[in-house]
Amino acid sequence: MSRTEEVTFTNMCMIRDGDRVLIQDRRDPDWPGVAFPGGHVERGEAFADAVIREVWEETGLAVSAPRLTGIKDWYDKGRRYVVLLYRADRFSGVLRSSEEGEVRWVPLAELGKETLAQDMADMLRVFLEEDLSEFYYRQTGNGWSRELK
Amino acid sequence: MSRTEEVTFTNMCMIRDGDRVLIQDRRDPDWPGVAFPGGHVERGEAFADAVIREVWEETGLAVSAPRLTGIKDWYDKGRRYVVLLYRADRFSGVLRSSEEGEVRWVPLAELGKETLAQDMADMLRVFLEEDLSEFYYRQTGNGWSRELK
Repeated sequence: MSRTEEVTFTNMCMIRDGDRVLIQDRRDPDWPGVAFPGGHVERGEAFADAVIREVWEETGLAVSAPRLTGIKDWYDKGRRYVVLLYRADRFSGVLRSSEEGEVRWVPLAELGKETLAQDMADMLRVFLEEDLSEFYYRQTGNGWSRELK
Repeated sequence: MSRTEEVTFTNMCMIRDGDRVLIQDRRDPDWPGVAFPGGHVERGEAFADAVIREVWEETGLAVSAPRLTGIKDWYDKGRRYVVLLYRADRFSGVLRSSEEGEVRWVPLAELGKETLAQDMADMLRVFLEEDLSEFYYRQTGNGWSRELK
């Protein structure tokens, strides 16, 4: 049996500065709302390099030593989509927004007041809870089930 | 540009019981030596389910809440190979070896006395060091370079 599959890799990074986290108010009509910065991993790119590059492009900040904290994944038309979830608490640079959306610091405790992007509430649990490492969407007979593992 | 790539996913799990870790003395002639249990992720399988299944098959132990701690990855013939590295410190069951190799507990501090499988020393750093999340083999003009990130 072949153990190779077609995969699209993306990433997302929760940058913390004390009690605050850096959010991005996404303009993308396909997935609008408040999320963390991130984007696509290019073919041939190391995963850590990809998240550092995406954060830089979307926030003007250079993070160092991003830590992998979990994964979101699902299948669509036979392809696995993988979002690698990182945390970073060391960075340098001056904050600036990009065309992807405005970025700003908010207290982590007040994140619930924001209009979160779809699924962000579940993704936040994987970012924050030690016992969770994956948010998997399982295709069922007539839809999807969410599994937090 | 296509952002899809062909990927083979595997996993490896460092199970800790206090100061001890569970090692597997691998019989595989392609990659012999001491490593941690793990194996292939099947297509359609959630990553967390895969590592729980592999540990069960190779050790008789049922781990709960495995935590993702890093990734090893490299390209070969255009395909990305990804090893998801997990840690687990909660488990139940009775230890038993499998045809993959003998499993036994050793003090973490004495792991260096074992005949480690190729690359295990670098992988151990990703398992153990907070600042590292990836061990990436980069293809260069005439070989490979190891990058710990």
